[in-house]
Amino acid sequence: MGKVTCDMAISLDGFAAGPNQSLERPFGDGVGDRLHRWMFEEAERYSAVIESITAAGAFIMGRNMFAPGRGAWDPDWTGWWGEEPPYHAPVFVLTHHPREPLTLKGGTTFTFVTDGIEAAMAQAREAAGESDVSIAGGAQTVNQYLAAGLIDELRLHVAPVTIGGGERLFDGVGALALEPVGSPSGSDLVTHLTYRVTR
Amino acid sequence: MGKVTCDMAISLDGFAAGPNQSLERPFGDGVGDRLHRWMFEEAERYSAVIESITAAGAFIMGRNMFAPGRGAWDPDWTGWWGEEPPYHAPVFVLTHHPREPLTLKGGTTFTFVTDGIEAAMAQAREAAGESDVSIAGGAQTVNQYLAAGLIDELRLHVAPVTIGGGERLFDGVGALALEPVGSPSGSDLVTHLTYRVTR
Repeated sequence: MGKVTCDMAISLDGFAAGPNQSLERPFGDGVGDRLHRWMFEEAERYSAVIESITAAGAFIMGRNMFAPGRGAWDPDWTGWWGEEPPYHAPVFVLTHHPREPLTLKGGTTFTFVTDGIEAAMAQAREAAGESDVSIAGGAQTVNQYLAAGLIDELRLHVAPVTIGGGERLFDGVGALALEPVGSPSGSDLVTHLTYRVTR
Repeated sequence: MGKVTCDMAISLDGFAAGPNQSLERPFGDGVGDRLHRWMFEEAERYSAVIESITAAGAFIMGRNMFAPGRGAWDPDWTGWWGEEPPYHAPVFVLTHHPREPLTLKGGTTFTFVTDGIEAAMAQAREAAGESDVSIAGGAQTVNQYLAAGLIDELRLHVAPVTIGGGERLFDGVGALALEPVGSPSGSDLVTHLTYRVTR
């Protein structure tokens, strides 16, 4: 069985998104590309890191990461990523609203799970087989999995900015003990920190 | 004129202290030595880092870092650091309660400043001469200076733990742009990150 990983691009004050996320501003007010500049401007330098973010055998994400807004589904919405999402694997989307699975190009499927984070984990584990399962985000979903003790490895990509409000990693998670894995590394646009969650 | 620096030992979720700081628990409930283990257990390895924390020509700290509790002064209280505090320089303590200056062994003086952060900075600048001024803490004091744009260099010492509540660095500071200085480094007990505040 693989491990459960989680990659999060956050600000120095711990936010994965600003307030008021929307179709027009998927990362919320005042964020724009501030958290992800390294992915675009240093794509070559960090190609291995970027590849590892989508290397898992299955993914879990929150409804809020799959689609803007809440409530009933817009059946035309198939995610933010166009015809061929970067996952190339089964993705399980946590939601309160049932929906038929979607199959997109390149092996990405979206399955909508309405019975909670543990059910989604069981499905993702089965789909991944021996490979890792990745908790793809957003912060609220990651925090639920952290609080439940279900994440093994947390890979933080910390942008040298503060945002001041929004969706914050670790909110409501309480006290954790972690163990650094490898050495921290970085550039002017990002610091990469990897931790094993040991509590 | 030197620069204004700030060293902060924080948790991965950004807390410099837990809730309910007191005489018995100066770093608040549930914190103990979790943020500072590296200073004690890796004192030799990090002797240069530890020395640099008290290398400035003058220091500024909040009342809450100098003494437990609030309100009127206990005239017998001369700080947490015993007869010879590690500062060996003038320290300016922000407070609403006037008090005569204190002179301790080894060149540490505590001067109590009741007219605000900018007045304290002016006094510290004058006392430091060409040397740096260090904002020693706690988080609330650092946040005030960050919000006022008065800190040039932020040196974070991030312990691999989360605390879940208490005094948080960057609270109320809003959006900042920073620039990493040098490379991140660390051990199992701490990650050192240095930033220039550029906003």
